[in-house]
Order: sequence, then structure tokens, then C-alpha cells
Amino acid sequence: MSPIRHLVSIDDLSIAEMRRLFERAREFSVEPQSWSHLCRGRISASLFYESSTRTRLSFESAMLRLGGGVITAADMGNSSASKGESLADTVRVVGGAYADLVVLRHSSEGAARLATEYSSVPVINGGDGSHEHPTQTLCDLYSLWVERGRIEGLDVVLAGDLRYSRTIHSFAYALARFGANVVCVPQPGFEMPEYVVRRLREEFAIEPMRANASRLGELASTSDVVYLTPQKPHQLSLFTDAKGWKVGRVDAVYMTRPQTERHPTDPSDPTSYMQLGKRAMSADSLRDAVVMHPLPRRDEISADIDADPRSIYFKQAARGVPLRMALLAAMLGEIEVLDPEQPRGAEVHPIPEGDNPCEAPSCISRTEERHVTPRVRFQGRAPHRPACAFCSNDLTFAFVGCTTTRHYHAADSPAVRQIRPDHQVFFPDAAAAEALGFVRGAQPSPIA
Amino acid sequence: MSPIRHLVSIDDLSIAEMRRLFERAREFSVEPQSWSHLCRGRISASLFYESSTRTRLSFESAMLRLGGGVITAADMGNSSASKGESLADTVRVVGGAYADLVVLRHSSEGAARLATEYSSVPVINGGDGSHEHPTQTLCDLYSLWVERGRIEGLDVVLAGDLRYSRTIHSFAYALARFGANVVCVPQPGFEMPEYVVRRLREEFAIEPMRANASRLGELASTSDVVYLTPQKPHQLSLFTDAKGWKVGRVDAVYMTRPQTERHPTDPSDPTSYMQLGKRAMSADSLRDAVVMHPLPRRDEISADIDADPRSIYFKQAARGVPLRMALLAAMLGEIEVLDPEQPRGAEVHPIPEGDNPCEAPSCISRTEERHVTPRVRFQGRAPHRPACAFCSNDLTFAFVGCTTTRHYHAADSPAVRQIRPDHQVFFPDAAAAEALGFVRGAQPSPIA
Amino acid sequence: MSPIRHLVSIDDLSIAEMRRLFERAREFSVEPQSWSHLCRGRISASLFYESSTRTRLSFESAMLRLGGGVITAADMGNSSASKGESLADTVRVVGGAYADLVVLRHSSEGAARLATEYSSVPVINGGDGSHEHPTQTLCDLYSLWVERGRIEGLDVVLAGDLRYSRTIHSFAYALARFGANVVCVPQPGFEMPEYVVRRLREEFAIEPMRANASRLGELASTSDVVYLTPQKPHQLSLFTDAKGWKVGRVDAVYMTRPQTERHPTDPSDPTSYMQLGKRAMSADSLRDAVVMHPLPRRDEISADIDADPRSIYFKQAARGVPLRMALLAAMLGEIEVLDPEQPRGAEVHPIPEGDNPCEAPSCISRTEERHVTPRVRFQGRAPHRPACAFCSNDLTFAFVGCTTTRHYHAADSPAVRQIRPDHQVFFPDAAAAEALGFVRGAQPSPIA
Repeated sequence: MSPIRHLVSIDDLSIAEMRRLFERAREFSVEPQSWSHLCRGRISASLFYESSTRTRLSFESAMLRLGGGVITAADMGNSSASKGESLADTVRVVGGAYADLVVLRHSSEGAARLATEYSSVPVINGGDGSHEHPTQTLCDLYSLWVERGRIEGLDVVLAGDLRYSRTIHSFAYALARFGANVVCVPQPGFEMPEYVVRRLREEFAIEPMRANASRLGELASTSDVVYLTPQKPHQLSLFTDAKGWKVGRVDAVYMTRPQTERHPTDPSDPTSYMQLGKRAMSADSLRDAVVMHPLPRRDEISADIDADPRSIYFKQAARGVPLRMALLAAMLGEIEVLDPEQPRGAEVHPIPEGDNPCEAPSCISRTEERHVTPRVRFQGRAPHRPACAFCSNDLTFAFVGCTTTRHYHAADSPAVRQIRPDHQVFFPDAAAAEALGFVRGAQPSPIA
Repeated sequence: MSPIRHLVSIDDLSIAEMRRLFERAREFSVEPQSWSHLCRGRISASLFYESSTRTRLSFESAMLRLGGGVITAADMGNSSASKGESLADTVRVVGGAYADLVVLRHSSEGAARLATEYSSVPVINGGDGSHEHPTQTLCDLYSLWVERGRIEGLDVVLAGDLRYSRTIHSFAYALARFGANVVCVPQPGFEMPEYVVRRLREEFAIEPMRANASRLGELASTSDVVYLTPQKPHQLSLFTDAKGWKVGRVDAVYMTRPQTERHPTDPSDPTSYMQLGKRAMSADSLRDAVVMHPLPRRDEISADIDADPRSIYFKQAARGVPLRMALLAAMLGEIEVLDPEQPRGAEVHPIPEGDNPCEAPSCISRTEERHVTPRVRFQGRAPHRPACAFCSNDLTFAFVGCTTTRHYHAADSPAVRQIRPDHQVFFPDAAAAEALGFVRGAQPSPIA
Repeated sequence: MSPIRHLVSIDDLSIAEMRRLFERAREFSVEPQSWSHLCRGRISASLFYESSTRTRLSFESAMLRLGGGVITAADMGNSSASKGESLADTVRVVGGAYADLVVLRHSSEGAARLATEYSSVPVINGGDGSHEHPTQTLCDLYSLWVERGRIEGLDVVLAGDLRYSRTIHSFAYALARFGANVVCVPQPGFEMPEYVVRRLREEFAIEPMRANASRLGELASTSDVVYLTPQKPHQLSLFTDAKGWKVGRVDAVYMTRPQTERHPTDPSDPTSYMQLGKRAMSADSLRDAVVMHPLPRRDEISADIDADPRSIYFKQAARGVPLRMALLAAMLGEIEVLDPEQPRGAEVHPIPEGDNPCEAPSCISRTEERHVTPRVRFQGRAPHRPACAFCSNDLTFAFVGCTTTRHYHAADSPAVRQIRPDHQVFFPDAAAAEALGFVRGAQPSPIA
């Protein structure tokens, strides 16, 4: 029997697996009512610690279409949790006897990762704080694939709040994995964050370049447009000029709303936020571009293009059902989509000693300390950059210790790179290291 | 394929359709558990923007009895809506890919009508503010039909708060359509509103007359009783005397609670509200009258008649399940009940220019302006009386313009009646008309 | 056809019936997904007036596994109830046409008992205030039975808050009925209440004795341990010494959390509450003891024993699903488990006159007075001790009247015992008796 597969991050799926998912989703979409034999007798649990009606109903509709049953806790924030139950304990019970699969939504980053450690059935991340929402990304990719027949090589505009939207970040990584090009058209002040660009560069060899966006028209009139492409520099030189790459025909515009619920201060008065409407869509380069949006939209897409055939945001939402049907059926083992082995992501190690070095206040490693063993994941290679394995944020620390030599070193010391990852301990200051009996290492420590 | 049928108002069903519904409901009621093949694979969505457990559970039970599945948002007021999503957008997604039918409950009048404009599947109005609740009326009619074998010609007492109860108004219209007589026994101060009586008169040729209610006993001791009947005057003259029609044997008493949740000030201290109990039901004319109530009841029906065989209010609620089974199966096209064409109601026209003339603060045309094109429906014929097509309230305006002649006229000018309905624009004052370039019309304008 | 069976209290099931339930539950647990034909077409309603996600999901999972459907009101406290509907009226409708079985959770003691008076389908008590939660007790017994192969003769430690935990009280009664021994290890200040011990003594001939708990180690270091056993005194004398019975090998430790939600003042600061962890479980007498807990747990069970094979609290929760499958199937008449006759509990009588003598403020007989006829149940024999038939609390009264002689007597008068139970009326003082026309009885009244 294959080991259980979870879906915490879009990285948990290989490109080949996603392609097979899309094929099955398209098959399901033809006559969604004729698959009610596939998961008969199976139960999916919706564990929603924060309410998200659209995501929940989409999953539940998919499960019912497959003939399965659904048990629902639509607002866990106000129930058992009030008796102080930990997520770990809830998942141990629900993700065991009660259901054959758990869809989890939680306000803490890393909650789904934690759930996978305690569940004996597959866990699907239905959104964990501002971290990941992989089925949203899958739906976006699937919709693009349906519309364009492929993803590789497409030119996709990401517009609006590129800074706080997790949807945008996940979508950008996924586009990069598929070999698509990204045109960033940020709301001024809400540019794509440096850490996202860095990851794109390190993991996918994506190079950002300033772009000449004159053909994008009104949409890009106030933005500094950046082009992110996996193409080799020598190829780029063929068609870039002094002002950077020139935006040509665009395949899709993906618009996002201001993420006001993720940061308390409203980023802008609504009148100043960019709006995609008839005029903006009249730009030359957008002639064939489909318009996408994760919904709900507010004013950033004008109702005057709702009837435009290029506007596919409602189709995009609708496609979430067959896509989730395919995903549920795959994770329940009823269709062959997933490979026996999970694709190899970055290695994850428990941190053997010391305090939790993750400082993100809403990371599950901080909000549910009793059941969490802090874990680290090493990103990239060249700079030593460990991240919290739950919320993916960079760890903050000044010193690193080695549990075998009992030496500790400044974070930027070359000695650090010689410590085996699973022997590394992280300290905010020297005192914390010495309190645990570590001594300052004068020399690079030998490989432990 | 037939066009999609919605159920926003009881007027959306013809008398013949309702009779067929009742026949099927009675059939389903015999053994409700043996119809689980009828809607297998179909999904109904409960979109409840305000919670109404009884209505929701009744629909969901009906759908499950038919073998279908249910996705539920029991309290939308606190979820996606918080991200600012419009009803129109929600319905476009849910009433498309997620479900094969939508049951909508909303606090804004006209919400269900708006939903029909955006849904690609049938919408059933589960109550829109103080406007319509057609399945409640259907259940009431069905229950009367089951008890009495017919509706035409019955004498039905409506008692209690006749002013604010939408249930009562809808029921009164429906009784009139079926040719039943209505005996109004209002809580003093809560008489049937003038606009309801007017519609009964205009659309159903119902004549209200003062009634002698001595045989109704305690129930009518403090009320001015009014008899509403579709009978011809010459027939009435046979059995009326100087004091008006004399109440005889009554077929049903329909009691309602004070609608305290619809108007902030409690209409009465509870001790003074009418109460139907053993003593009131001992009146001579009520000997064979069944007692009905839409539930929940409070003190207006005393528990001392719960066991009385005439008390059918719990049966009435129970009958909601087979009735809704028939309705769901019909709207999903699984049984033949509905005619291909929706019965012709009053014509509805978009208002081509100007501000929304509807002033009802909780009308969906005001609470969701972005997605609503104001629409008008003309009621009656003789006086020019346009109403909002969403909330059905009379429009308030001082002037009417014609979009072809660009003239505007005082609302009571005979010229107004010559303007084509779909060319009419409504203005609160002359300034508003002139701001849009209309000029005062001196003479009746010719037919446009 | 058999009469409807309800499950309000664990006493509603005979020992033989529970044994058959356990057998069927074990059968269902082998392959829970292969029983979806058993209750096809049947509907269970979850009526939860207070939210309890775990209990609700467990029932709903069980019903879905059986192929049935579920309608859910997860938080009735905020819906119809707000229109002032009584529990009785809600149950009359839901427990009639809407569903074939009702699972009720309510904050008022006795709510489930009241529901059985108005429902036309089986009612299962899913917890009524601090009164009963019989399916929790069934799961506990079932889990013990699975682990040990029997219940009779086992030595079970009950530890923690033995005062306010209804779970503990019900479990203790049930263990006594099965002939198990109970070792009470209370959190100091939270000893087993006198009325529980009294009932154990009166109904099950259980004798409490001080116990020597030295072999229990840390767990009992600060508690006065009491042993409750149905064994005959002459048997006890064989192995007790001057210091009482000596705790030997224990079969199970059942730990409970402090019931902070049931009494407003936190009983203890969390640091001082007992904790079961590695050290406590190293005690000699606990070597083979399974560790049980009703969940959710907080700090009273340390995560350091979660992986210990003796820790079965998650299995215990998981077993709730097959157990509830068996219970639902049995109560819906789909498997043969229940005898045609409910086991004979104490007789219950309506109180024919006077005010409701129950003084428990959250008893349903006080919170829903309109629909409740106060009822009395006589406990034990020797002292005259009537209890409220809803909340089971002792009635408080100073005088008892007889409705045939119209005499009243002091509560402790021997005359009282000669009054037929169904003729007894209870008065707080003489004035209340005389207000209803009762006269002071000088002599014991003859048998009425």
C-alpha cells in the first residue's frame, strides 16, 4: 500500500501529477453528476477554524458529486476550541475514525503541516493563514490550462496587491515551475516582496527585468512593471532593448484585491486602487488575454467587463469543483493520479534543542507550542538560510550551535555551513547558547 | 429544453401548477423514504444570509429524502460577505458549478429576484426580508387543501398581526387567487394594510365589507372584523344585512405572532396580544375550523389546544417536507409539474436612466447597487402606479420623463399614461429631470 | 410494532442490550465503510443548542457510514430560538416529519427527557447541561470492554475533578451496574459528591472504603483515595487491613479535566491541577492500566505519554463512531439490539398540583415552564426522597400534601410514606399548602 499523501503546499505535487489532475478534472467537468459511484461510502471532514464559505462549499460539492459524505465544522473557532482543545488532538480524532480525508482551514501559518503529523488520513490545506492555499493555485493553473491548452511559455500578468496576497505568491512559484513568464504590474507600494523574487531566482533561475509596458495601456500607467522569466539571458538579448523587455501579447491578466483582512490598516482608499475595466482591457496587448481573479472581487474588477468573453473569473471559480473532484478522488486512492512517492521538497529537520527560533506570531509553532516540535528547512544553498518548516518564514537568530561539538558560532561564520543540518540549534544571543552549555567555537568545527 | 424556472413569489406558479404540486406532495407524504432515487446525484445549496433553522432543515430534509445532496451556508452574514462579496457574485458561482438548485434566504427585499438574474440554476426564495416567502404560503395552501379537499370557496379567518406579517399578506393574495374568502380579525392597531386591500381589490376583484362577528366569540371581541370575498355583489345581498356580512361557519383560523423582529418597537406588551385557546375555540362558528400557524408560535396560541384535533399547526409544518420534495423534484425537472412557460405576471422593465427611484432602505436595489439595474413593474391599470420590481414597494416620485421625447411631466399628469412603460424615467423633482436634459412637457406627449 | 425507544440516560439500556451493542460496534469497526446500505433513506437530525463539534461530528460520521442522511442545526442557541420557540415545539416538528431520529444537545438539564415527550421519533441525548451524556458513557464502557474483554470485576481509577464531571458520575454508575470496582482519586476539593455515593450505595449496594494507595505512586500523593466496590463485606475482610483496602493492580485510569465551563470560578490555577504523565504512569500498580480520557484534554494528561501503548484516549474517541453506528442502527430498528420493552427505571409521576418544586435554575422544568408538567421520581426506598424527573436533582420542600385527603404533612412525617406517589404534592411552606386548600394532617393519613 502506498503511503498517505497530503497536500499542504503546491510543491507537494509534481508537474506530472498536476497534469494528470487537470486531465481528470476536465473529464469530470463534462458531466459532473455521473461520478457518484467513485467515492461512495467515503467521508470528508471540513475542519474550518475560520469560515470560508466558497472554499468549503466547493470541496463539499466536489465530495457529494463523487458520492461521498461530508461532515462539517464550519466555524471551529467558536466550539471545541473553547474547551481548549489543541489542533493536534482534534486532528488525531477527526482525521482518524471520523473521516477518510480532512480539509483544514486555519488562521495560523503551518497548521496544515502540523495536522499531517497527527492525522492518519490525507490532509488537504484549505488555507493556513497567509501561508499557502494550494487548491486555489491548482484551480488557477487548471483554468489557465483549460483556456490556453498549456501553461509553459505563457505570458501572465499579475496585477494589484502583489505584496500581501498569498494567492499571488503561490501562483507565481507555480507558473515558474511550469515554465511560464510573469509580468508584475503591482499597485504602487504593493510590489512583489524581495523574498518571493529571491526564491524565484534561486529555485527556478528566474531573472527579473524592468519591462517597457507601454502596450499594456492604462493598466500599467502608474506601475513599475517587472518581467520574470526563466529564459536564458542570451535568448532575452534577442528581443530586449535598453529599456528592458517590451511587453507584447499577454495571455492572461490575474487581478487581486487589496488584502485588507491580512493587514489591519487599509492599504489604500478604495478609489485609488487599480481597477480593471473596459478601458484597461482595450489595451492592444490584452486583446486575447483572459481575465482571472481568485474571487471575491470588490471594485478592482469593474462589473462592466463581466459579460466580456475574456472575463473568465466566474468560470475559474466554477472549475474548482471538477478540479477538487479529481483531487479528492486521487487522494482517496480512487483514481490513479499520484505517484507512490511525494516529490522531494527541501529536507526538514527537527531542531534538537533550544527555544523555538521562529518568531512569526501567528505560526502554528508558536500558537500551539505544546504539540509542536520546531522544525527547520534549509532554503537555497549559498547563503545559510534556514526557515521555519511550518510557516516558511526565515528564522531569526544570531548564533548557531552544533549538538555534537557543543560549539556555537556567529550566524555568518563559515563554520556554520559545516554543521550537519539536523545538528543545528539556533540562538538569539550568546547567553542563550551558553545557558544550554554551548561554548563559543573559535575555529570552524569539523563535520560532525 | 425548457427554460429555467425560479420561485421568487407565489405568483410565479399558476393555479394548475400548484394543484399538481399538491397532488405530488400528497403522494410523497405516504412513504417519504421511498423516493431516494429521484434526485440522486443532484445538489441543492442552502444560501442563508440570515439563519432560519426551520426553513433550512425542511428544505434539506426534502432534498435528502429525494436522494440528493446538500451544501449549506447557514449563516452567510458572517463569512464571505465579510470580504465584501456581492450576492450577485456569490450566486454566479454557487448557482452554477456548485449546485443544481439554490435556496436563498436574505434580509433584503428582492434578493431572490436579483439572484435569478445571475444564477444558471433554479433559485427558490426561502424568504427575502419582509417581502415574500412563497414556500411558506405553498405549505399553508397545501395543508388547507389536504384538510378540506379544496381551497375555493372556503372561509378562512386571518387573525393577529395582519399589518407586518408577510406570511399573512402572501397567504391572503393566494387565497384570493384560489377563490377563497378571507375574514380579517386583526389585533387592534395591526389591521391589514391599505396597499394589500387595494391589490386584492384591483387584481382579484375582492370587495372588503364590515362583518358581524358575533358568532366568532372571544376571538373577535375587540377587533373590527372585515370580510374579503370575490363574490359578486348581487350574491352578497342575499345574505348580508345592514351590519354587513354575518360570519357563519369558518373553515380555518390562521393565527400569527406579533412580528417584533420586523419592527423595532414591540407592538404590544405580550399580555395584551390576542390568544387563541380553549375558550376562543369554543365559539360556535369555529366548531369545525382547523387552527393554523406558520410557527414558531409564542403565546398567541395557548398550549391548552395543542391536543385538540382541530389544531393542525404541527401537521402543517410537517407537511412542508413532502411539499418541498415535490417542489424540488419539479424544479430539478425530475417530475412533471411545471408548465414550460412561467405564468405571465406584470411586465417588468429596466429603468433606462436616472437614479434608482426605490426608496425602501432594505431593498436589494439599494443594498447592492453595483449589480442591480433598477427595474419597474406597473401595478393595476387606472392610476399610474409603478412599483420596484425587486421589493414590490410603490416608487416615490414627483415627475416622469420619456426617454424618446425628452419631456417630463408631473406624476399625475394624463400625459404620463401615454409614455411607453419601458421609456419611463422617474424623478423626485424637476431639477433631477433637468440635470439629465429633460424639458418640461407642456402638452401630453404623443405615444412614443 | 415495538414502541419507540429513546436514550436519555444510560439507565435506559439494560446490561444485555449494552453487551449486544458492543458486539455490533466491534463488528462495524472492522470495515466501517461497508455498511452504507443499513440506513439508506433515513435521516438523523443534529439539534445542538450548544455547540459540541466532537459529539456532533461523531454522530454524523456514524450516520453517513450507515448510508443515512444528516440535517444539522449546529448552534440553535442563535436561530429559531431567537424567535422564542420552545424546545417542545421545535422537537414536535423536527422529530416528526424532518427526521427519523433526533440527536439533541442542550444546556438545560432534562431537555432530552422533555424532548421524548414531544418527539414521534427516537431521541438520543447528546448531553443535557451537567446532567447526562449517555453516549459518552457507552463509548467509555465499550472501549474498556474492547481493551479488557469484560467490565465486571475490573478495578478502574477515576481521577481528577470527580465533583462536577457528569461524565464521571455516569461512568461510575455504569461501572457499578456492570459489577466493576471504582478507585476514586480526586483532585483535592473535588471529591465525588455525597449524592453520587449515596446512589451507588442504595441502588448498587456499593460500599465506599478508605483505601491505601501507596502503590498508586505520584498520582494519589495528595488525594484521599476511596474504593467503591460491590463486593460483599465478608469477601472484603479477606484482603483489607486496618488502613482500608490496599490498591493493587489497576485495569484503567480514567482522567478528567477541571470542569471550568460548568462552574464560573476556575477551581484551581492550572499549575496545581493533577497531571498524568510519564512519572505518574511509572507507578507499579499502573503497569498494565490503560489511560482513558473523554477529551478534549488540556494539561491534565501530558503529551509525553501520548505515544505510550497504554494511552488509549484517542482510540477511545475513535471507537465512538462504530459504537454510535450500532446505536443509530439499533434505534432506527435496522439491527436487533434493543428489547421491545425499555428496562424499568424508577417510576415517574406527574405532580398533580402546586408549584414546580424543582429549584435547579437550569432545569428544563424551569427554563421551559410552558410546556413542562413537573414530574417526580422516587429514589431509593427508606428515606422519602423524591427527585425531579427531568434534572434528577432532589426536590426541596418542607411539606407534602395528598390530593385525595387534602391533608398536608411535614416532609419527615411517617404519614408521608403512606401517600400514593402519584397523589403527592410538594410545598415549600405551610402557607403554600393552605393556599391550595390543604389542611394540616394531625394523624398519618390512611392509604389513599
